[in-house]
Amino acid sequence: MEPYLRLNVNLDGDRAGRLVGAREIVAAIVAAASRRSGETGLRLPPVRVLAHQLGISKNTVAAAYAEAAARGVVAGRRRRGVFLRGKTAAAHAEPGAAPPAPRLQPARLPSHGAGAHGAVSLSHVFVDPDLLPRRRLSECIRSVLRTPGIHAFYEAQGHAPLRRAIADRLRRRGIPAAAEHVLITTGSQQALDVVCRALADRRVATENPAYFLARRLFEMNGVAVTGLPFDPFGGPDLDAWSRQLRAARPSLLYLTTNFHNPTGYSHTTEGLETILAIAAEIGMGILEDDWGSDMLSFSEFRPSLRALGGPGVLYMNSFTKKLLPSMRIGYLLANEQTIGALVEAKRVSTLGGPMLLEASLFEFLDRGYYDTHLEGLQRALDERYGLCLDLLRRHMPDGVSWTTPGGGPLLWMELPRAVDLDRLSARLLERGIVIDATRESFFGTPHLHGFKLGYAYPKPAQLERAIPMLGAAITREMRRT
Amino acid sequence: MEPYLRLNVNLDGDRAGRLVGAREIVAAIVAAASRRSGETGLRLPPVRVLAHQLGISKNTVAAAYAEAAARGVVAGRRRRGVFLRGKTAAAHAEPGAAPPAPRLQPARLPSHGAGAHGAVSLSHVFVDPDLLPRRRLSECIRSVLRTPGIHAFYEAQGHAPLRRAIADRLRRRGIPAAAEHVLITTGSQQALDVVCRALADRRVATENPAYFLARRLFEMNGVAVTGLPFDPFGGPDLDAWSRQLRAARPSLLYLTTNFHNPTGYSHTTEGLETILAIAAEIGMGILEDDWGSDMLSFSEFRPSLRALGGPGVLYMNSFTKKLLPSMRIGYLLANEQTIGALVEAKRVSTLGGPMLLEASLFEFLDRGYYDTHLEGLQRALDERYGLCLDLLRRHMPDGVSWTTPGGGPLLWMELPRAVDLDRLSARLLERGIVIDATRESFFGTPHLHGFKLGYAYPKPAQLERAIPMLGAAITREMRRT
Repeated sequence: MEPYLRLNVNLDGDRAGRLVGAREIVAAIVAAASRRSGETGLRLPPVRVLAHQLGISKNTVAAAYAEAAARGVVAGRRRRGVFLRGKTAAAHAEPGAAPPAPRLQPARLPSHGAGAHGAVSLSHVFVDPDLLPRRRLSECIRSVLRTPGIHAFYEAQGHAPLRRAIADRLRRRGIPAAAEHVLITTGSQQALDVVCRALADRRVATENPAYFLARRLFEMNGVAVTGLPFDPFGGPDLDAWSRQLRAARPSLLYLTTNFHNPTGYSHTTEGLETILAIAAEIGMGILEDDWGSDMLSFSEFRPSLRALGGPGVLYMNSFTKKLLPSMRIGYLLANEQTIGALVEAKRVSTLGGPMLLEASLFEFLDRGYYDTHLEGLQRALDERYGLCLDLLRRHMPDGVSWTTPGGGPLLWMELPRAVDLDRLSARLLERGIVIDATRESFFGTPHLHGFKLGYAYPKPAQLERAIPMLGAAITREMRRT
Repeated sequence: MEPYLRLNVNLDGDRAGRLVGAREIVAAIVAAASRRSGETGLRLPPVRVLAHQLGISKNTVAAAYAEAAARGVVAGRRRRGVFLRGKTAAAHAEPGAAPPAPRLQPARLPSHGAGAHGAVSLSHVFVDPDLLPRRRLSECIRSVLRTPGIHAFYEAQGHAPLRRAIADRLRRRGIPAAAEHVLITTGSQQALDVVCRALADRRVATENPAYFLARRLFEMNGVAVTGLPFDPFGGPDLDAWSRQLRAARPSLLYLTTNFHNPTGYSHTTEGLETILAIAAEIGMGILEDDWGSDMLSFSEFRPSLRALGGPGVLYMNSFTKKLLPSMRIGYLLANEQTIGALVEAKRVSTLGGPMLLEASLFEFLDRGYYDTHLEGLQRALDERYGLCLDLLRRHMPDGVSWTTPGGGPLLWMELPRAVDLDRLSARLLERGIVIDATRESFFGTPHLHGFKLGYAYPKPAQLERAIPMLGAAITREMRRT
């Protein structure tokens, strides 16, 4: 069937809303005909459709169409309906005016470089899907689906029972927390986004190098960024940071306390305390990103920035990597001063998240599945970490060094400057191994020369195959120079 | 247990990554002690924990701790572990430095005014949950959960089969569309957000009044907005719009073609054509928000702006209201020029959405459930719409008028200027009826004096009770004046 016109049929003035008659329909058709600029053959709505939508009898509509035809504004076409009369007899519309596509900013994200099917990625920070509790999560989703009513709506701040469960969990880890200060987000990425959007003064400091999607997020939010360079082996030079921060006076320091991406660095406790002292002195807020600590065994007793620095410190974390990436559930812990603006920023960005999944995650936490799962996950990651170190020690040539983060998902590999990282990446890709030697993460000229090595995603057999090949390729590149 | 320090233990320089010995552990402890500013009683990590994380023997760690004790840097406490020596003997930490909470923008969203439990809301644009296909959606989610593998990851652009199903559906409704130009979003709100974020030139025009969360979204994105006033009875004065647009030269017009919120207005076809001609002439892009057309019977044959104006027109729609609000799935249709920047803006905002729900929605569409569901939904909404008009005609005093959108979820009620809308809202709230007479939606002084009336959410019996009370309350307020 052909498209048909949308008409606007109304009584005038105060009588609008009362039942319309043939007269108002004719007036609407005449108005449509007089205002139409194109030479189109659009139909009037079928009689029964217009009668239905106006809540009047078909006879009234038919009478109106007959009057419009008598006035020469419309013409019937056999078996096709009643059409507005164009200036020509063309049955089909000429294409109308076509506005241009809106001008958008050029896309700037590096492509994924995923490599061919079957390639081993050594640059993922995801966890091997075989280590994720999909069966138990499915159980919890099924259980929520059996509860009537729960998943029809959403709350901008997030499902209240889930917020309570998260606050309980944080308290058990030494972080005072109340459910009313927790905001559920679409992964860590939205947590960082809502903070940026809510900031009154958009000047932020963060580690250099930084997670490249965080960099783009700052740019997209018009946030000016001070990059604080650090060495993933020795940690940050805090005297230098202090000087930089005093000069730049950012309103917020965004710091990844455990397993910083891409360096794998975790801050020492005394480092965190020094950072808190600087922040307190210059009146700078802190956003702690704690995505990694759940992946390290025995980490539940290490104090977080939020625990050390009190409720002014914003804290973010995510279940994305540890449970199921496709659930996309992260959260922020704020305080009574900051929660309101953050909830508003979330509401304006995406209104709310999928309550069904939030309720299912609550069920998962409530049944104690998460702790059991983490134990197994940490054990598996420890094994892969140990294997990875073992392989590196056996297969890396002298001059190559790497950090030893103690477990978790990633470490930093530092190569001699003479090695051409792009060439190395290309050679490895030919052999089915993906590394991420991009320098997109650095502010300015990179002060490091290497790449992250993620060992949570590849299976042990893949590590056993890929790391010796990595060692051989690096050796070859070193000999070239 | 008490928290313990995070140490950084490494070999120096090129040897980093090789096995550490007691010497490096002692060096790390000495560094921690020398750099600590606070008088805290933090423990060293238990011997077995540090040995595990460093991949070395417990004896090595124990030897290092003994050496550190001999140097006077740490001291053992019976049954509690080994502690860094503070300057005092205080067993518990003084609170360290506490940075301030970051300064955020004040929250400005109006509160929900939901009224007491059991209140009838006449201002919802949601659909009565009893009309939503929860059983069938549950079936689809269960079916997806039985497929191994599908929901471990996410794609920033959205689940490919869902994008294909959406493109098919659009094509059947007369909109040429390809899956590679579809972007899945968290509801309409994120669709609008990613467009704003990707815009190279942040000047937008939109209807006045406008959906208030869209207004806040524009503000949050630093978008300058031109409000185009219009009359929900007679539609826009397009000559006036043309003059305003030529003066303001926005890069984008954001237009809700069906059931504009809060007025309920749907543009006529000749109005859309005139708007396209203006846009083509002044080089302005268009974003069409088509959230409402699925709720109107027989609407599948009404041409959309995208169908009339071609692939340069950005098109957005959402399943949120029609399927299950908590799924939060909407989408954008772009073209080859615009899709890249939009995917990037989505990726930077939230990375991806919950693939499990995207896959379940695909299943729902693929099984043909959506069309069956829409038929029933439209029938039910038509009934409520008819009932609502009937009740309004019987119970509204002269001088009150309302639009007749032909079905769908909402219409506009216009009251005599003399009625105090705030007083009316307050009086109705006392009687358990919620209306949304806020003027937050207007740019400048409101040119309308009324509120939206949503009839998709209240059940017929609630409409039968609430609308006569609404009529009585308005009559009373009119008599006061």
